[in-house]
Amino acid sequence: MSISTQGQAFRHIGSRPVRPDGVEKVTGKALYGPDFVTAGMLHGAILRSPHPHARIVSIDTRRAENLPGVKAVITGQDFSDLQSAEMVGGETTLDVRNVALNCMAHDKALYVGHAVAAVAATTPRIAHEALALLSVVYEILPHVTDIDAALEAGAPLLHEGLLTKGLAETPETPSNAALCFTMTRGDTVTGLDKAAAVASGRFTLKPVHQGYIEPHACVASWNADGQAQLWVSSQGAFDIRNQTAAVLKMRIADLKVTPLEIGGGFGGKTTIYLEPVTLLLSRKSGRPVRIAMSRDEVFMATGPAPGGDIDIHIGAGSDGTICGAVMEFRYSGGAFPGSDTHAAAMSAFGHYRIADLSLTGWDVVTNMPSTHAYRAPGAPQVTFAVESCLDDLASRLGMDPIDLRLKNAVRPGDLNPVGLPLGAIGFDECLEAAKAHPHYAAPLAAGQGRGIAAGMWGNYGGQSSCVVSIASDGTVLVATGSPDIGGSRASMAIMAAETFGVPYENVRVTIADTASIGYSMVTGGSRTTFATGMAVVDACKSLIETLRNRAAGLLGVEPADVTWKAGEARCSTGECLSIAAIATKSGQFSGPLSAEVTVNAAGYLPGYGVHICDSEVDRETGQVKITRYTAVQDVGRAIHPDYVEGQLQGGAAQGIGWALNEAYLFNAAGTMDNAGFLDYRMPVCSDLPMIDTVMVEVPNPAHPYGVKGVGETPIVPPLAAVANAVSRAVGYRLRDLPMTPDRVCAAIPDRD
Amino acid sequence: MSISTQGQAFRHIGSRPVRPDGVEKVTGKALYGPDFVTAGMLHGAILRSPHPHARIVSIDTRRAENLPGVKAVITGQDFSDLQSAEMVGGETTLDVRNVALNCMAHDKALYVGHAVAAVAATTPRIAHEALALLSVVYEILPHVTDIDAALEAGAPLLHEGLLTKGLAETPETPSNAALCFTMTRGDTVTGLDKAAAVASGRFTLKPVHQGYIEPHACVASWNADGQAQLWVSSQGAFDIRNQTAAVLKMRIADLKVTPLEIGGGFGGKTTIYLEPVTLLLSRKSGRPVRIAMSRDEVFMATGPAPGGDIDIHIGAGSDGTICGAVMEFRYSGGAFPGSDTHAAAMSAFGHYRIADLSLTGWDVVTNMPSTHAYRAPGAPQVTFAVESCLDDLASRLGMDPIDLRLKNAVRPGDLNPVGLPLGAIGFDECLEAAKAHPHYAAPLAAGQGRGIAAGMWGNYGGQSSCVVSIASDGTVLVATGSPDIGGSRASMAIMAAETFGVPYENVRVTIADTASIGYSMVTGGSRTTFATGMAVVDACKSLIETLRNRAAGLLGVEPADVTWKAGEARCSTGECLSIAAIATKSGQFSGPLSAEVTVNAAGYLPGYGVHICDSEVDRETGQVKITRYTAVQDVGRAIHPDYVEGQLQGGAAQGIGWALNEAYLFNAAGTMDNAGFLDYRMPVCSDLPMIDTVMVEVPNPAHPYGVKGVGETPIVPPLAAVANAVSRAVGYRLRDLPMTPDRVCAAIPDRD
Repeated sequence: MSISTQGQAFRHIGSRPVRPDGVEKVTGKALYGPDFVTAGMLHGAILRSPHPHARIVSIDTRRAENLPGVKAVITGQDFSDLQSAEMVGGETTLDVRNVALNCMAHDKALYVGHAVAAVAATTPRIAHEALALLSVVYEILPHVTDIDAALEAGAPLLHEGLLTKGLAETPETPSNAALCFTMTRGDTVTGLDKAAAVASGRFTLKPVHQGYIEPHACVASWNADGQAQLWVSSQGAFDIRNQTAAVLKMRIADLKVTPLEIGGGFGGKTTIYLEPVTLLLSRKSGRPVRIAMSRDEVFMATGPAPGGDIDIHIGAGSDGTICGAVMEFRYSGGAFPGSDTHAAAMSAFGHYRIADLSLTGWDVVTNMPSTHAYRAPGAPQVTFAVESCLDDLASRLGMDPIDLRLKNAVRPGDLNPVGLPLGAIGFDECLEAAKAHPHYAAPLAAGQGRGIAAGMWGNYGGQSSCVVSIASDGTVLVATGSPDIGGSRASMAIMAAETFGVPYENVRVTIADTASIGYSMVTGGSRTTFATGMAVVDACKSLIETLRNRAAGLLGVEPADVTWKAGEARCSTGECLSIAAIATKSGQFSGPLSAEVTVNAAGYLPGYGVHICDSEVDRETGQVKITRYTAVQDVGRAIHPDYVEGQLQGGAAQGIGWALNEAYLFNAAGTMDNAGFLDYRMPVCSDLPMIDTVMVEVPNPAHPYGVKGVGETPIVPPLAAVANAVSRAVGYRLRDLPMTPDRVCAAIPDRD
Repeated sequence: MSISTQGQAFRHIGSRPVRPDGVEKVTGKALYGPDFVTAGMLHGAILRSPHPHARIVSIDTRRAENLPGVKAVITGQDFSDLQSAEMVGGETTLDVRNVALNCMAHDKALYVGHAVAAVAATTPRIAHEALALLSVVYEILPHVTDIDAALEAGAPLLHEGLLTKGLAETPETPSNAALCFTMTRGDTVTGLDKAAAVASGRFTLKPVHQGYIEPHACVASWNADGQAQLWVSSQGAFDIRNQTAAVLKMRIADLKVTPLEIGGGFGGKTTIYLEPVTLLLSRKSGRPVRIAMSRDEVFMATGPAPGGDIDIHIGAGSDGTICGAVMEFRYSGGAFPGSDTHAAAMSAFGHYRIADLSLTGWDVVTNMPSTHAYRAPGAPQVTFAVESCLDDLASRLGMDPIDLRLKNAVRPGDLNPVGLPLGAIGFDECLEAAKAHPHYAAPLAAGQGRGIAAGMWGNYGGQSSCVVSIASDGTVLVATGSPDIGGSRASMAIMAAETFGVPYENVRVTIADTASIGYSMVTGGSRTTFATGMAVVDACKSLIETLRNRAAGLLGVEPADVTWKAGEARCSTGECLSIAAIATKSGQFSGPLSAEVTVNAAGYLPGYGVHICDSEVDRETGQVKITRYTAVQDVGRAIHPDYVEGQLQGGAAQGIGWALNEAYLFNAAGTMDNAGFLDYRMPVCSDLPMIDTVMVEVPNPAHPYGVKGVGETPIVPPLAAVANAVSRAVGYRLRDLPMTPDRVCAAIPDRD
């Protein structure tokens, strides 16, 4: 379903053609990370720490090196001297030393699964045999995986010199608290004092994995002169290049990264794990090397989303106006600092007007895999707490939960979390659409509960490059540096076809390698259709100017006499020249038809979502069944509605999994107990109802076709939407995710 | 040795650094056409006609198709309906139907080696077994491989409907003469009547092969939706794409061609042979397919340079002024029309001022492989005749052969063959340099002879695209669409480093695929360093403007206060910002540092060469030994002198081979008798002296660094230089190439 606030006639925008990469993918021909092969390639494998916290005393590689077929063995000693240095990795600043240490441990292993050595051999089997021949002497250290335990005095320290950043005064003693982030507005004490009702509590969440289908994999080839190549699936080949070059102290221009197809990322494929290791193996062996992770390696050695503890108080007046909110949250960053405290703080209350607000976020290191971005990084956790409390407030005030949110919703002209006025946002429209949706009025059976929740994500613009060329038959080639994860080839082709006025099939989109096109940030942060799309449209417009001028030359008229419409130059005399006619004739005289545009795209707008969830709880077993689900979102304008709906559905499905089943479960030895898809329980089709979607289209005036980011927002509301539905079904507020059957049973008040 | 007419201080231009692709190539890591592999790839093989001229009555493919492991068999029937249509292939116009028919025969096989069917199988061995199971019924037709026989009345006709083009009246009856090209100036009858001496004769040459080391090979992958990819080594991925798409009636944007390293081309890798065949096998099998030619396939089924007959008269006054010239030449085009009559006509007398001139060229089809471009296509053959006659004239007039040429040499301001005034050319300087060279005055031993010859090539500019980007560490990425054959990565890096003022090693050059950059013509015609180089320099200059503006912003001054020098922005206040400092800081605020330039480069100038050759003839065996050789050429300005010298040496070596040993030898059955490097005798190192070079640098004012094309000219003079040297050594004019021992023996007048 689509609700549009602004009608406009388009030929391609809003249509639903087959994606250009679709046939290649469904027929199995597309090459993903683990599929790529190159001539003379070796196979690599990684030895990983069995201990959550251990000093590496020594590694004896001789037996492995002597195994026939083994061509290289590396350890942390093969990395250059590591120094802390800041580098810009996409939107965030990374510490190069930490990135390197996460790729391979040097002195200490910091989690079970931390890489400690790697081998390359002529077959995968020999590589794995060689791993067994590596002798590592560990000095086992006490470990900590729990946030609260990690913050206690006397807790095992992961990083000896870690002094908490962000406090008014830098502390004198190290701890596991890497960062404290605070944000205050107004006077929360007075604010909460005025409240007619206050909702509060401690909410907890476990780390969860993005669960992309394709494991991490790359092929590396290092030349004796220090130039190198990587073939890798990632969300952004340029940031993979820059991070790898920084870790290996290479000139960036010496490293060419060719993007392969990506089988899901959700934020988890924006950093490096295998890349420097594989390159060093290639350097040592003199041969190209491939490493592909197994599923348990993906779980144990890549970056899940942080779990956390959240303490919250929200108060509202009797009319529902929120008069104050206080929140303190602690995110489990894993082995290295860097959980998403800042983004969490921006999102938690970003959809409400709250004059008096205080927010404190902690980034805490623990002996588990270093957490990483996962779809709207940081936002779902805090929103779970906020939207749970809003539901409690609505109950206490006797208000409809949507009405309570409408009362406080930010509207155009209100200030965003950093104090700038908001533009053409559509949160109000989403709440109204949810309220008017048949789902919201549908009767519930006994034992069922209905929850709603809202949420927001700030979205992003940023840097993108694109080259658009026209071949001599008039077909169009679009090259961008943005990997296609959710259908961006299709949306770029639609926007280019719309701008030129040519058939969709006449436009083909390529993801160029890092040596062939200008820098482009990752596909993530809900920026690609907005920012890269803007670059594509601008490049097409630039080419239309060129085409008009060339047509004028060919027709012998002034350029002002030529207009562009429906794929052809129309002269005021009535003569027309198609794009193909101009392309065929003009190259020989005027040169290649090609235009490049780079952008640092401004004008992006936040996305807002409202989800409605019906749940049914088996009071005997505690099993929760989602019986109906509707996701409403302001999507700006849907370029390819199928993929926008897919984003809404996918985010909801992932959020439902986070709410009900998914969790990193560590045993007492610090090992993840469920590192596989059988035990790490993601929802599958049979677990979910068809997820209904409502695309509210409030176009973004800063984008030529009104685009807003759509990919992150859908995962923000569902944790609370499900929790509110389950809490209403059982008659008791559930504050701990996942809401597994044992916890639900325990929460049912009158269960014997 | 280098002689410069214009001194200028450069940091990089004229230096001789290691080529950026050098280490990769000498260590065997670079991937050439036959090296590339992709996942799931099948192996293809081609069945070729054993008959020089035969109707294909039927092909039974069933037994081959039933062989286990065979995944696809195709014949000419698998091609779409073929229609004649003109297409622009680089600088020339091609007939799509002929290109297709040369890739695979339909009704008739026109030469031994003509492809008639192809198979794809799981291993190369099965593919070859399958070829043996194909049953082809041929109706053998009379054939003709000799030019004169092909033009006789009643000769076997290759193409039933071929009516000679270019005549005043189109003939009524078909023949094997495809084209007649005429060019006249002044009144040659009167001109020759005034002559004090006339030289004349019939000169003959055999077809010769370019002899590139790497055979043709490609990998093709066809998707079920009609989109496809090719990985192929060629001189220009874009023209390979356009030709293949035209033959297979594809949208151009549907075909992505990724260039692989190329192991020599010399004009022979500017057209398609395997590409449509491999794509059709991939379409039929649903798998990627690779085909690589064997050496005998390269000889028998790709395009050698045409041999020919040349009848010539040149007259000169007693002071040496050429007063008239008449030439008629017939080139053996092979199976399809398209030998280089036009370029030959432009080059034959292009280096001399001749008021009265008449030139007629014929393109004749014969039952041999369709000829194709070979370095200065068409020019060496006619120049052999012209420069041989000039030597005879000099003898008859008692003039020094260089003085005779100086008397007639074109100079700036003279008209070129199409009547336009010549710019800053350096033929005069080359002749003076040759005359002053120690080689020219060195004494000769008994039995030795010294020949000199001159020659020219018009060079070219044309279409090139380039993208230059700056990474966040200030290193520079240059992407072009021009395959690197003779060191263009190095020359592009030198020009970019010079323009930015950064170290050479900080610039890396990539050859982009056809989907990632704008159209670029082939690397050939001596255009790449000139035209693509111009695009690179312009893109660097555009980025310097951007860098200056960003530096001004960072320093808080006006852009006018910032100059660019030696890789940094220098503010009038004394502050400096390096390219790295600007790149690191500016991306986040101002977006990617990247600039694209496309050119249709004008302002190219012809290249002129003068070669001196000493030969020693064994009067017993007829064996010719080249004892000393010097190549003098106006090179504009040498960007990387090593590679310019290499071009001069390589052209001379190939020309010496053409003069002395190389030839396509057809037996009576129409089969090439010497289709292998053992029997097709190219000169090897031990056959040749070190070839001395003199680079005369008369810069081209139209190019930012003075570049002229250098690659073709060096093969133009040597045929005549060697022939003149041998003729002087034996005391008899040799007019038939190659000057094999038997022919030399026969030419020695007093041999018993």
